Amino acid sequence: MDAEEFRRRGKEMIDYVAEYLENVEQRPVYPDLEPGYLRSLIPSEAPLEPESYEDIMKDMERVIMPGITHWHSPYFFAYFPAASSYPAMLADMLSTAIGCIGFSWAASPACTELETVMLDWLGKMLQLPESFIAGTDGQGGGVIQGTASEATLMSLLAARCKAVRRVQTYTSDKSEVEIFSQLVAYTSEQAHSSVERAALIGGVMIRKVPTDSNYAVRGDSLKKMVEEDKAAGLIPFYVCATLGNGENMWMHIDAAYAGSAFICPEFRPLLNGIEFADSFNFNPHKWLLVNFDCSAMWVKKRTDIIGAFKMDPLYLKHENQESGGHWQIPLGRRFRSLKLWFVFRMYGLQGLQAHIRKQVALAKEFESLVRADKRFEICAEVVLGLVCFRLKGSNELNQNLLKKITNSREIHLVPCQLSGRFVLRFVICARTTESRHIQQAWQHITQLTFELLDVLRSAVKVLHFMHVNELWNPCESAMLIHK
Amino acid sequence: MDAEEFRRRGKEMIDYVAEYLENVEQRPVYPDLEPGYLRSLIPSEAPLEPESYEDIMKDMERVIMPGITHWHSPYFFAYFPAASSYPAMLADMLSTAIGCIGFSWAASPACTELETVMLDWLGKMLQLPESFIAGTDGQGGGVIQGTASEATLMSLLAARCKAVRRVQTYTSDKSEVEIFSQLVAYTSEQAHSSVERAALIGGVMIRKVPTDSNYAVRGDSLKKMVEEDKAAGLIPFYVCATLGNGENMWMHIDAAYAGSAFICPEFRPLLNGIEFADSFNFNPHKWLLVNFDCSAMWVKKRTDIIGAFKMDPLYLKHENQESGGHWQIPLGRRFRSLKLWFVFRMYGLQGLQAHIRKQVALAKEFESLVRADKRFEICAEVVLGLVCFRLKGSNELNQNLLKKITNSREIHLVPCQLSGRFVLRFVICARTTESRHIQQAWQHITQLTFELLDVLRSAVKVLHFMHVNELWNPCESAMLIHK
Repeated sequence: MDAEEFRRRGKEMIDYVAEYLENVEQRPVYPDLEPGYLRSLIPSEAPLEPESYEDIMKDMERVIMPGITHWHSPYFFAYFPAASSYPAMLADMLSTAIGCIGFSWAASPACTELETVMLDWLGKMLQLPESFIAGTDGQGGGVIQGTASEATLMSLLAARCKAVRRVQTYTSDKSEVEIFSQLVAYTSEQAHSSVERAALIGGVMIRKVPTDSNYAVRGDSLKKMVEEDKAAGLIPFYVCATLGNGENMWMHIDAAYAGSAFICPEFRPLLNGIEFADSFNFNPHKWLLVNFDCSAMWVKKRTDIIGAFKMDPLYLKHENQESGGHWQIPLGRRFRSLKLWFVFRMYGLQGLQAHIRKQVALAKEFESLVRADKRFEICAEVVLGLVCFRLKGSNELNQNLLKKITNSREIHLVPCQLSGRFVLRFVICARTTESRHIQQAWQHITQLTFELLDVLRSAVKVLHFMHVNELWNPCESAMLIHK
Repeated sequence: MDAEEFRRRGKEMIDYVAEYLENVEQRPVYPDLEPGYLRSLIPSEAPLEPESYEDIMKDMERVIMPGITHWHSPYFFAYFPAASSYPAMLADMLSTAIGCIGFSWAASPACTELETVMLDWLGKMLQLPESFIAGTDGQGGGVIQGTASEATLMSLLAARCKAVRRVQTYTSDKSEVEIFSQLVAYTSEQAHSSVERAALIGGVMIRKVPTDSNYAVRGDSLKKMVEEDKAAGLIPFYVCATLGNGENMWMHIDAAYAGSAFICPEFRPLLNGIEFADSFNFNPHKWLLVNFDCSAMWVKKRTDIIGAFKMDPLYLKHENQESGGHWQIPLGRRFRSLKLWFVFRMYGLQGLQAHIRKQVALAKEFESLVRADKRFEICAEVVLGLVCFRLKGSNELNQNLLKKITNSREIHLVPCQLSGRFVLRFVICARTTESRHIQQAWQHITQLTFELLDVLRSAVKVLHFMHVNELWNPCESAMLIHK
């Protein structure tokens, strides 16, 4: 394919993409197929000679689209939002075309520098403390990671490195691995699995701090645990949480989803205490209209995180060494800050705030619908775009309801567990979700609930009839079930 | 920006991208600016209200392009190739538009399944042993990682996990951290820094095995080191190399750049011995026309690598659990296999082989030019697209030559170190590099060499004149320099 053909095919692709996104709500949001479906639809080997472009695009509808869970359908309420906007898509095309691999300043100065400045812009939008802003001579600053998992891992590794150095200054005979075996990290028992994973990768112990009735870690629970561990000869060194601490530990705050909301003054208080953190992370690729991947991470001291991996071979050395630096697990990286630049400028801060506020209002709208129905309950305070709810009743009942929802393929939800209870998560995800989608989703859920409860009611009626007519004995039945 | 405007702007962007790539050779390949150049060119905060799209695109030329190192210029011979092709770019647009986050099978079945099948296609193109192919019931299989660094880290972590389990089966009283402190990984002293980094992250010792005169690790050097370490009570568990071993160690083979060439039968012998490896990795995003990021990794036993991180929270559980799985450091991931699919089909195996062969021929052409000039020497056998060469003479001389080349901005090279010698690396990078670019690059290098040597000659002549006329004494001069 030469540039000429690319011009033609590229423009067709733009139309295809626009058409897909405009009409995605007409597709079933969740695929109806079994694992392994794809292998039988395409050859088992690559073609020897080129195929036609038309055939490939035909296969998009034949092979790929039936297997897509449509994250940008306004009927997708599962997991968390995957941000998407047209300006971000245009910027991504540019990033792909420029195709520089930004592993050092010299490898493409604009790539490194725009990233630092965009993270300053974003940090200011969030009103982060000055200590996190790079500016021209700050010690802190931001960097784009692929995902929050990588940010968590990087912060844990930096903390580990710092802890080892600190311990070695007063006990110089201890080896690094010896110190590793005494380090303990802490996180909330409600935290994302990526924290546990980071500790596993870094080869350090991790302890889960119990949460209170609001699913939040209380300072005294953490403190108690830390005291116990110190008494047992261990070295507390890292906490991934939402609380301050004074224990010489690195504190990382992960607000992967919620972080975007902090650009609105009314939600910013949720970030209070950030001044005590050493590092902070959230994902613009979740809720700030910047397509995946773009996870924003700030640290107070850049040298902490760069120092954790200082080993630059000759081919990465250049005259302006200090301007780049490796803040990530991967060495190479795309020119991702272009997406931030385009989105910030095309929306403006006010446009981004409007997006967040609209989605929070939609969540509140759904919450009211749930609260108005006596059969249901809300399971956690609705603060942003996530509504946790369930049918009053057993976990099995709610599992059955979710199964009906999933199989219907009209809307898509996933569950979570809160204090041992099976809970349905309803998240406002797609940029294009409107009130009518919320209303229709609720109508659909209540219709499926009616069907589910109707079946149960009929079954109960039959059993009641059999029981009063001595055709059935509940005790015998229980025995039958357990056979 | 709505769909209508996106259709218009998207088509303009396609033209911009085509124009950029068609004419990139007319831009200076390396930027002429100082670190920090960008900050003063743009505001220090994000705009409150939306800006116009025209202004943003104007800034592409004003702010961004002057700071780009043009990796796709045919005069770019630095680092390694960053693959790029039009079919991959089109596929990337699709991937962005679909925007699914593929962390499990259910999160988008097509994303998980196409990846497995494409890695089978690619594995067959490389004639990998059957044990690496997933098929419908194989134990092995492939996965796309972001970079080779991540693949190396994943293989090391899987090996660490396996080693701990093995040791614990015969010494059940040993704790995990205790075992960690005895594990040793090995790699070639010539290996990429990512191996050392992976060991650092994983908290295990690493030893560098010396190489022979061909910069290759010899089996007996490794064996000797392993025996020493075992005698010292350590546990050898991982080797990242290009050689077989029989020591119960995990062997990972990283062929980040070279791997693409193995689709040509004449280069495939370079991969002999792969049957002894546990995992293998190379980067289609380097040399196989698939834009970054796309690093292909295969393992013989998928369970080894999935088992290293088994911790699935409820929101990731679904009925077809085993079809997905976390083989990566990040949890979320883009739909990257679409790029492979488009490229394999639009080029066909023969088209990809032709690309590799053409670039190897260009490297050979450059090698001949170097060999024909008595002032230069070739420093390592030219096997694929990389030519290591230098001026016969001191490291300083070669450093000066490289500095002249870098400052001229007509071509771009980076150095490496081989046995303490400063060497210039000339890599065939851009897809569009032709013979005329090679000829012109060489002409440019010899011109700069002439200028450099001319200055030196003049200086020597002056000094000689002064010396014979007793105006200058070399011994005094040496003293002056050291003052």
